[in-house]
Amino acid sequence: MALNAFILNCTLKKSPKVSHTEALINKCVDLFKPLGVECEVLRPVDYNIPFGVSSNEGHGDEWPAILDKATRCDIIIIGTPIWFGVRSSVAQLVIERLDGTYEEGDPKTGQFPLYGKVGGCIVTGNEDGAHDAAATTLFNFSHLGCTIPPNADCYWVGEAGPGPSYIDAGGDKHMYTNKTARYMTSNLAFFAKLLKDNPIPTNLKQLTADAEKASQDECATRHGVGA
Amino acid sequence: MALNAFILNCTLKKSPKVSHTEALINKCVDLFKPLGVECEVLRPVDYNIPFGVSSNEGHGDEWPAILDKATRCDIIIIGTPIWFGVRSSVAQLVIERLDGTYEEGDPKTGQFPLYGKVGGCIVTGNEDGAHDAAATTLFNFSHLGCTIPPNADCYWVGEAGPGPSYIDAGGDKHMYTNKTARYMTSNLAFFAKLLKDNPIPTNLKQLTADAEKASQDECATRHGVGA
Amino acid sequence: MALNAFILNCTLKKSPKVSHTEALINKCVDLFKPLGVECEVLRPVDYNIPFGVSSNEGHGDEWPAILDKATRCDIIIIGTPIWFGVRSSVAQLVIERLDGTYEEGDPKTGQFPLYGKVGGCIVTGNEDGAHDAAATTLFNFSHLGCTIPPNADCYWVGEAGPGPSYIDAGGDKHMYTNKTARYMTSNLAFFAKLLKDNPIPTNLKQLTADAEKASQDECATRHGVGA
Amino acid sequence: MALNAFILNCTLKKSPKVSHTEALINKCVDLFKPLGVECEVLRPVDYNIPFGVSSNEGHGDEWPAILDKATRCDIIIIGTPIWFGVRSSVAQLVIERLDGTYEEGDPKTGQFPLYGKVGGCIVTGNEDGAHDAAATTLFNFSHLGCTIPPNADCYWVGEAGPGPSYIDAGGDKHMYTNKTARYMTSNLAFFAKLLKDNPIPTNLKQLTADAEKASQDECATRHGVGA
Repeated sequence: MALNAFILNCTLKKSPKVSHTEALINKCVDLFKPLGVECEVLRPVDYNIPFGVSSNEGHGDEWPAILDKATRCDIIIIGTPIWFGVRSSVAQLVIERLDGTYEEGDPKTGQFPLYGKVGGCIVTGNEDGAHDAAATTLFNFSHLGCTIPPNADCYWVGEAGPGPSYIDAGGDKHMYTNKTARYMTSNLAFFAKLLKDNPIPTNLKQLTADAEKASQDECATRHGVGA
Repeated sequence: MALNAFILNCTLKKSPKVSHTEALINKCVDLFKPLGVECEVLRPVDYNIPFGVSSNEGHGDEWPAILDKATRCDIIIIGTPIWFGVRSSVAQLVIERLDGTYEEGDPKTGQFPLYGKVGGCIVTGNEDGAHDAAATTLFNFSHLGCTIPPNADCYWVGEAGPGPSYIDAGGDKHMYTNKTARYMTSNLAFFAKLLKDNPIPTNLKQLTADAEKASQDECATRHGVGA
Repeated sequence: MALNAFILNCTLKKSPKVSHTEALINKCVDLFKPLGVECEVLRPVDYNIPFGVSSNEGHGDEWPAILDKATRCDIIIIGTPIWFGVRSSVAQLVIERLDGTYEEGDPKTGQFPLYGKVGGCIVTGNEDGAHDAAATTLFNFSHLGCTIPPNADCYWVGEAGPGPSYIDAGGDKHMYTNKTARYMTSNLAFFAKLLKDNPIPTNLKQLTADAEKASQDECATRHGVGA
Repeated sequence: MALNAFILNCTLKKSPKVSHTEALINKCVDLFKPLGVECEVLRPVDYNIPFGVSSNEGHGDEWPAILDKATRCDIIIIGTPIWFGVRSSVAQLVIERLDGTYEEGDPKTGQFPLYGKVGGCIVTGNEDGAHDAAATTLFNFSHLGCTIPPNADCYWVGEAGPGPSYIDAGGDKHMYTNKTARYMTSNLAFFAKLLKDNPIPTNLKQLTADAEKASQDECATRHGVGA
């Protein structure tokens, strides 16, 4: 059974401009192939995606078609450049647009649409900020329902200050990045398969009801009701 | 088969002083019980743990015994108060001391000692900073080998500015915190069992060797060697 | 001599939709008045501002007119909602578009266009993330040339989890927010006047040349040149 | 009139172990000299400083003597290594111990003990995390009363992944770091002199009282009192 990964390249540059982040993404796509994972890569900046926090902002919003891919994939990855030490505005926009999915849970379990998916993050910058960009993104993914395997990110950054970016700096030969790209793709593929075979059973609706009941019982006890 | 969770309460206050973070931790411990998870809770600040990045800093270092618990548990959780918008110095010290484990991988697979474990985070603060504290901590855990399930953190914070802490503010009745505590404990328990039954097969040593070989091949091709 | 503040409300919502961040901004505008500071408030989302890192991206880019206001004010403030624990995508877009100003320094001193200005930050969210949003923004401002006075931010956030936003929660009566709004406006006004009377003399071009020369001298000494 | 800077080297390593952060600190000390700024550099890790958030934790606490230096200097700087993408546990401990100063304001103005001081940050790491470490630290300083001049930080980091640290990597010749070290020291010196000659007049006590009064008036108006 083939697995598929959906990779959002959150570069600020529209196609076909050269994206350094895409170069590292493409390396990961190649690594995914022998693992049986087919990838679709897309630049949100190529589409009309208004700012917002719902799943459809109307007026020609092209997000719904992208969200559809996000909710049908097995592995979801955000690729982002670093700007001013953090992830790009486009990456933040994508995360914001996923906010609406909290309200679109499974009728029975309440699981959000990204539950059962596996999340990863690919970062490039000419310097500093990869930890912050990946930590924020993977944490957001985990809130949205994704599982984060060990070593679920890979990144390249150069030395302090402005300098050549990934492609120009020969980042494709940087051992740490190449090693962690392999860790990431292997673990994402393993977990995607594992979760397909073993769906997460957690019933968020039931747990929410339990929390409400426990709170009421506790209050009742405190106030002597039913004593 | 029983599962066990090791929870490091990274409060700044030594036992038996009241720890608000511990109150939320205790709630999670209670939630873990019916899930078959036995918990051990410990305050690093009660022990002599020097600053450092190795697994044994000598001179009466009590970290090795704590590290031993960390490497034998199924679920590892850091509980931390928020100070100045981020996790506590004790939480940071604990993470720093785990740095040495990168060098102590399995001889065959290279998997770090925390590989196969599931990571979570519990945060309390009288205000703002929970996202940053949890994101940083869960990201560090994922680098160290832990798997981060969906909704792997729970936290309580009050309104902007100084104010009553968790216990005094009646945080134990806060629905969002109680709901997410249930999401967290359920998912941590599910994944701990899942990974015990399905160990992560990733061979980091082999992947590192692959990365080195690919880099050499690529350089050879570029320079016409073997052409 | 009147001072003027330029406040960018980085809400995701176009005018005239209700913006909770604008409600807190308006409170600050009122506090600025008796201090002799005139304010202009603007929502970037109302304009056509393409993603990018230059000062003019062409094709109807409306950023240049906004940048003009940014480079002529005495006080620059970013107001931002919190989404997923960090500042909004619009705030990030604004910061990215300021990247181009690094290249547009004063011909003589090399000072960036925002040198001599005073920076502040106003944040609202229904919960958690204000420290991260303000810290990132004020730090970026300081890199771009702004001075950050003490207590240069004010924010409102509610308790953990989803809940009513600033206006609906009666945040306008929250003492900590109201107190720090006064600290912020007073200090921003004092520093704006102070820097108008005492321009920063730092010559970045000269210091860059000094750094280059020192590096060469050091290398020469090491290699015995001129010995 | 001589100015003085107090630099806390928040390395994890006790003296006389080699500290890469100290090497960059020493470069800044040399740059401060011709600007008339005398420096005192100290490693908190050399002292007995318990975890806590008060200005004196008793039992041989050596923090009070360090706090005394912090409250008497003109410029305060935290130097910190990066561990796991953020500032060191020792830097966090120092910031936590400054929490008590919020309660020790000037009897008349309420200004915190660090009001009127100028804050800076020096960061080294073998890779990624300098923006986060500096942003968090400078933001905390601004809350505590410090003014943050433009370009108030300098840092050195190497490429992605483990690698040689500042000294071993020849970081002392890295142009971006050397340039920004000069920006930082020049601006810190200028602002320290400026604020000595022009003390910040803000009366935090009065502003707090104003905020309380405004809130009461507002409530009275809403409820028709005095109408």
